[in-house]
Amino acid sequence: MTVTAPSGFRAAGVAAGIKAAGGLDLALVVNDGPDATAAGVFTRNRVRAAPVLWSERVVGGGVVRAVVLNSGGANACTGPAGFQDTHATAEHAAAVLRDPGFARSMVGAGEVAVCSTGLIGERLPMPRVLAGVATAARALSRTGGDNAARAIMTTDTRPKTVAVAGDGYTVGGMAKGAGMLAPALATMLCVVTTDAVAAATTLREALAEACRITLDRLDSDGCMSTNDTVLLLANGASGIEPRAAELTAVVTAACRDLAGQLLSDAEGSTKDIAVQVVGAAAEADAVAVGRAVARSNLVKTALYGNDPNWGRILAAVGTTDAAFAAEALDVAVNGVWVCRGGQAAEDRSKVDLTGRDVTILVDLHAGTASATIWTNDLSVAYVHENSAYST
Amino acid sequence: MTVTAPSGFRAAGVAAGIKAAGGLDLALVVNDGPDATAAGVFTRNRVRAAPVLWSERVVGGGVVRAVVLNSGGANACTGPAGFQDTHATAEHAAAVLRDPGFARSMVGAGEVAVCSTGLIGERLPMPRVLAGVATAARALSRTGGDNAARAIMTTDTRPKTVAVAGDGYTVGGMAKGAGMLAPALATMLCVVTTDAVAAATTLREALAEACRITLDRLDSDGCMSTNDTVLLLANGASGIEPRAAELTAVVTAACRDLAGQLLSDAEGSTKDIAVQVVGAAAEADAVAVGRAVARSNLVKTALYGNDPNWGRILAAVGTTDAAFAAEALDVAVNGVWVCRGGQAAEDRSKVDLTGRDVTILVDLHAGTASATIWTNDLSVAYVHENSAYST
Repeated sequence: MTVTAPSGFRAAGVAAGIKAAGGLDLALVVNDGPDATAAGVFTRNRVRAAPVLWSERVVGGGVVRAVVLNSGGANACTGPAGFQDTHATAEHAAAVLRDPGFARSMVGAGEVAVCSTGLIGERLPMPRVLAGVATAARALSRTGGDNAARAIMTTDTRPKTVAVAGDGYTVGGMAKGAGMLAPALATMLCVVTTDAVAAATTLREALAEACRITLDRLDSDGCMSTNDTVLLLANGASGIEPRAAELTAVVTAACRDLAGQLLSDAEGSTKDIAVQVVGAAAEADAVAVGRAVARSNLVKTALYGNDPNWGRILAAVGTTDAAFAAEALDVAVNGVWVCRGGQAAEDRSKVDLTGRDVTILVDLHAGTASATIWTNDLSVAYVHENSAYST
Repeated sequence: MTVTAPSGFRAAGVAAGIKAAGGLDLALVVNDGPDATAAGVFTRNRVRAAPVLWSERVVGGGVVRAVVLNSGGANACTGPAGFQDTHATAEHAAAVLRDPGFARSMVGAGEVAVCSTGLIGERLPMPRVLAGVATAARALSRTGGDNAARAIMTTDTRPKTVAVAGDGYTVGGMAKGAGMLAPALATMLCVVTTDAVAAATTLREALAEACRITLDRLDSDGCMSTNDTVLLLANGASGIEPRAAELTAVVTAACRDLAGQLLSDAEGSTKDIAVQVVGAAAEADAVAVGRAVARSNLVKTALYGNDPNWGRILAAVGTTDAAFAAEALDVAVNGVWVCRGGQAAEDRSKVDLTGRDVTILVDLHAGTASATIWTNDLSVAYVHENSAYST
């Protein structure tokens, strides 16, 4: 049920002493081949962490044999020295893995992706990181995926893993992210593995499409991370080469599952909210409206208070450039059409908001396109957690 | 110190029974002339309340002799019936004021602006509103400005008023707004009066410029209201016709003062935060960066927790399209340069965040333009207040 579900992947998660509080904080995922094709999607934030800059370059080569991930520090806004730290981590991992006891093929530093998560602006304790890489290499196993998923947790309360069966091959994955889930993936690290046979270009298209309609439509708190990274590694160990569309569908299913886990474990959240926008003139309009509703602190606090405040939803819709007429807007909350034609309709007291799942349906009556954005409410616990994160 | 500070304006605030909780909830401001020129700025939200649609039309005519304002209901998303309610309010005010005991000149409904604030989506209790207009007309006085300012309060904890002396004339004003202060003015009602002589076109330019750099740069919680209205009324009673630039400066001073009062009384806030962006290639870049920082829930919660978390500031800057290089960004918090060249600089523990006022200074090193956005922190009290607003 994780990155080691497909054949030919080993993983480990160890306590390297990076997190002040202790616990697992360094993960290693190794692809034992025979292939080592890869693709990646990275944050669109223009302030990019050192591991993002490094891993983009690695993935650009199309070959990834190992991934080192750490919690306890983002290594973002750490300048050239921080980049050197990432580089040294990859070099060290490659050197350790060159030992035939650890890897089944020669590994170059340029084939080792690195991911980091934690506080921005501080250097990593490199002696501990490097020692942790060696410890993790010794701990690599076919059942190490669960520990790896635990080692990348920050404020997550539980590990997120997935395994989806394809036709003769498997897609597995793990993810972390509970704080800044947002546009362009937000503080999320995600590694997806498969034993399918697939060229890097196929992986690239499959991952881009999967992210576009799953992880990229999570918008928990509107904030965009400096470190978001989603990697897809394939080793062909199954001998099966699925059609591109089929592989895309399976990877999408895995990413959707992980996205749902991220949503339901978002910091301090009490609601998982699906903002479904239909009747849009274009998908981009639907996404824009969905994001506007998802990012409205007034909508989010209302839902935290179990209040189906559709007026705030309309006010959020009205901030967008999407095609619609205000007097044509319909809004349903958990199936009750509280607003029809831009006015009050069914009695809002009929809306049951006592459960965790909330569906907001907005019909723009401007076309046939649609999109769903997933978000959370804004709770007292969110404020507590994020006002005390670094102190 | 309010809308009745300039000569020739009377006002009143009465308890009309619109607010369920009781208290003052209807205000009337009357311009006794001799002139009745006017200008207005309205929300850019595309979902516009009935009084906004009405008052835009009234102001378009360039003549405003009276303004009716109510709290206790926004009359937004109320359809054609809601618009009829606003129209009826203006008609009734005009009829009442036609009585020579109430007004010094004939008043037409098309010269009566209407402003409403409160919950979206519900009709106003019209018998009470109309009776309240008549009561307010009887209560009109040269000292009624303070009651008027109190009658428009919603979650405001105190009335906001101002008076600025020009050269032989006066500019007065009142405002309300504690919830949705945001781009394009947000749930704010603001009436500014002057006894200067000024054509409607002069007023229009003065108000637009004043709002652009004051009220429009308040972004308390990123949400945009359906009801924002800022009106500027002039009666020429002083006989002084200031130069346009001079009038603009005095109106701007009045609006800046009111904006500061709105900021410091924003819902649940514990910090007044000035995000000053300098070194921008263009003013639009500076505004975009300032808004991105002001709207980051992670920045806002960090400041609530007295945490100078500059990494979150950089992450917010990185979401914009503004011209900058990530490795050139400098950030100071309350005068301490915690980030230089995109990296940690002075010790963050030197930052004193115990006071209410916080200044975040971001230097983009990309030009000479600058702008300041004012915002608040995101507190537990904000969540409490906004999760219980309508219930």
